[in-house]
Amino acid sequence: MVERLDDDRRQREPTDALVEEPLQIRLDGQLVATTMRTPGNDFELAVGFCHAEGWLIGATINTVRYCATGDAADTEFNVVTVDTIGRIVDPTPRVGVTTSSCGWCGSDSLDVLADRLEPLVPQALADEIRVVLDASVRARQLLFDRTGGSHAAAAFDRTTGEIAVVREDIGRHNALDAVIGRLVLDEALPGSDLGVWISGRASFEMVQKVWAAGIPTLVSVSAASSLAVDTARRGGIALYGFSRTSTATRFA
Amino acid sequence: MVERLDDDRRQREPTDALVEEPLQIRLDGQLVATTMRTPGNDFELAVGFCHAEGWLIGATINTVRYCATGDAADTEFNVVTVDTIGRIVDPTPRVGVTTSSCGWCGSDSLDVLADRLEPLVPQALADEIRVVLDASVRARQLLFDRTGGSHAAAAFDRTTGEIAVVREDIGRHNALDAVIGRLVLDEALPGSDLGVWISGRASFEMVQKVWAAGIPTLVSVSAASSLAVDTARRGGIALYGFSRTSTATRFA
Repeated sequence: MVERLDDDRRQREPTDALVEEPLQIRLDGQLVATTMRTPGNDFELAVGFCHAEGWLIGATINTVRYCATGDAADTEFNVVTVDTIGRIVDPTPRVGVTTSSCGWCGSDSLDVLADRLEPLVPQALADEIRVVLDASVRARQLLFDRTGGSHAAAAFDRTTGEIAVVREDIGRHNALDAVIGRLVLDEALPGSDLGVWISGRASFEMVQKVWAAGIPTLVSVSAASSLAVDTARRGGIALYGFSRTSTATRFA
Repeated sequence: MVERLDDDRRQREPTDALVEEPLQIRLDGQLVATTMRTPGNDFELAVGFCHAEGWLIGATINTVRYCATGDAADTEFNVVTVDTIGRIVDPTPRVGVTTSSCGWCGSDSLDVLADRLEPLVPQALADEIRVVLDASVRARQLLFDRTGGSHAAAAFDRTTGEIAVVREDIGRHNALDAVIGRLVLDEALPGSDLGVWISGRASFEMVQKVWAAGIPTLVSVSAASSLAVDTARRGGIALYGFSRTSTATRFA
């Protein structure tokens, strides 16, 4: 219950605040990331995050679980562990990316991606499919209806426009990680027949996640960053920004 | 130059992509954070970030500089070092926040803040001041005019509504860090006479940064998270969300 202020009258009405809690992601026991997220899709989020970082290449996911020390009562719902079999890639938490020299820039980040990911063949999206995505996803944004504050990401069938997965979160990265994590767990990747729609801006990391998922089409309702555009071009991803009902900008 | 798609006609028109590049922040030589940011306010951003984390308590800033190995030609513009004198707090990069047990939650994060920050006295904002903030800041969002994709943060005089500092960035955290970094460098903190306005959502970290700056009023044009509301209540910050011209929601 919060106070809503209006010009004409002052009234009290319920408005749900969007839940935000930290999540620690562990990979085979090692802490690899912490993120502020809206609880609800934690297993998918953790799997999607690790997938985008390339740490699951060649590995099989054994279990995804909350960290627990014994009793169910001791289960910690803000720590998720992804346990794998046959993993060959060492996770490198990003803050730990130190170099002996000072050199580091956006194109270096892009080179690292290009070293492990094959370029896709960009797939344009028919306008008649694109223009209905907004409304299709919006109808499924139940968290946004209650809070007015959550981002959403969705995977859709590029031919029919049918929405395959929608996830919502306070963080746009998390929402996309959860969508891709769901697809990983469903063994539905690479998603060459899919496209991804996001409610926020297309930044480098958003393109990275879509590329790692093998999905050659990304639609954002907002702007695309310079590095996102470079990454989409290098990765072979058709990138649309400012996608509103009737107009969009194709960046790559 | 990108292709803009319209229903009726297809045309080409220039649209600047928002620049996004990684920034490494070092504190006395130690890598403490990496962030994807829009270049332009790097020194302020680095200082503001370290300030919000509490690492500058008791310290004097000696120099803020780009990492350079000799010649100007070798200067690396994506690595900023904040050099301090008399620093007493060890920086703990957040990904490294490991605990021996599994336990960790939002209220733990809040407890850590409350351990080092005194509660403020929340300062309500007069409606006639609040309703013009949007337009006042918008008139100064030069980067947004060109790209349509940047967030903004601003510090303003709570009595007159006059805008003191505006910063823009692809990341809303970065924009706020740069505003507060500017105030740190100007020795204008704690900002008991100031308020902060942000173009994005009020999350935990946004409230943390404002609290650490001693600013008792935060206005967001969008939603506030549950943890942001808890933090604002604990920190003594008047928190407004969904601040549009005529209406707002007071969360704390």
